[in-house]
Amino acid sequence: MKLKLIVSFLLLTAYFTAFSQQKQSAAVVEKGLIKISILYPYAEGKTFDMTYYETKHMPMVAAFLGSNLVKYTIEKGLASGIPNQPLPFMAIGVFYVKSLSDYQAAIGPHRDAIRADFANYTNISPVILVSEVVK
Amino acid sequence: MKLKLIVSFLLLTAYFTAFSQQKQSAAVVEKGLIKISILYPYAEGKTFDMTYYETKHMPMVAAFLGSNLVKYTIEKGLASGIPNQPLPFMAIGVFYVKSLSDYQAAIGPHRDAIRADFANYTNISPVILVSEVVK
Repeated sequence: MKLKLIVSFLLLTAYFTAFSQQKQSAAVVEKGLIKISILYPYAEGKTFDMTYYETKHMPMVAAFLGSNLVKYTIEKGLASGIPNQPLPFMAIGVFYVKSLSDYQAAIGPHRDAIRADFANYTNISPVILVSEVVK
Repeated sequence: MKLKLIVSFLLLTAYFTAFSQQKQSAAVVEKGLIKISILYPYAEGKTFDMTYYETKHMPMVAAFLGSNLVKYTIEKGLASGIPNQPLPFMAIGVFYVKSLSDYQAAIGPHRDAIRADFANYTNISPVILVSEVVK
């Protein structure tokens, strides 16, 4: 009976240790990463096909990046946060990578293919920001 | 012996199920959330004190948001991703919230205090985007 209690306690401890470590690593993983954000400014007459972007374009680019890619995200612009101002961006796609130079080396040979795909989902010329995750 | 094997198998299954669920929930947790992104455009003569922003301004605003706030992030602009183009943004702060109306209700009474704090870290008028996490 005592042994069973000890075994149960050890198992529970292992379980909670594993869980708390998992949680911690999920929380700190982004700090220090490089973000490449592709921002699509809104303007009258501009179009953006979110379904194509999500199911074709972003997965295509992501596949070029290999293990340097930690994750990628997509967001859809809803409104300006300042009343009576126009929507700033229709959409933003972000690649979180470990190394900017590895990103550039991976994208280089595919630049023409990536640009050629733009016409399949938008007529917007994107703004591209390279930034570092501070927090 | 057979019973031990079965118990071991069940424990292992429980363990891996727990882990894979944890991983999945960490991966999908952002989808559907509302992002309020405060983007600080770069221009000649513009300044931004990242230390003040990270240690004073963002924690102050975050504290107003309560349990509606899932997380907040800060990034530092490094360069344009397009050669020979100026840096688009010096910094971006983002609040990930569950409800836009709860965010607006929480910020409303503190809007003047938040705006008054701008001068302590920047002379930039930010662009604010409300968006939805698609992926």
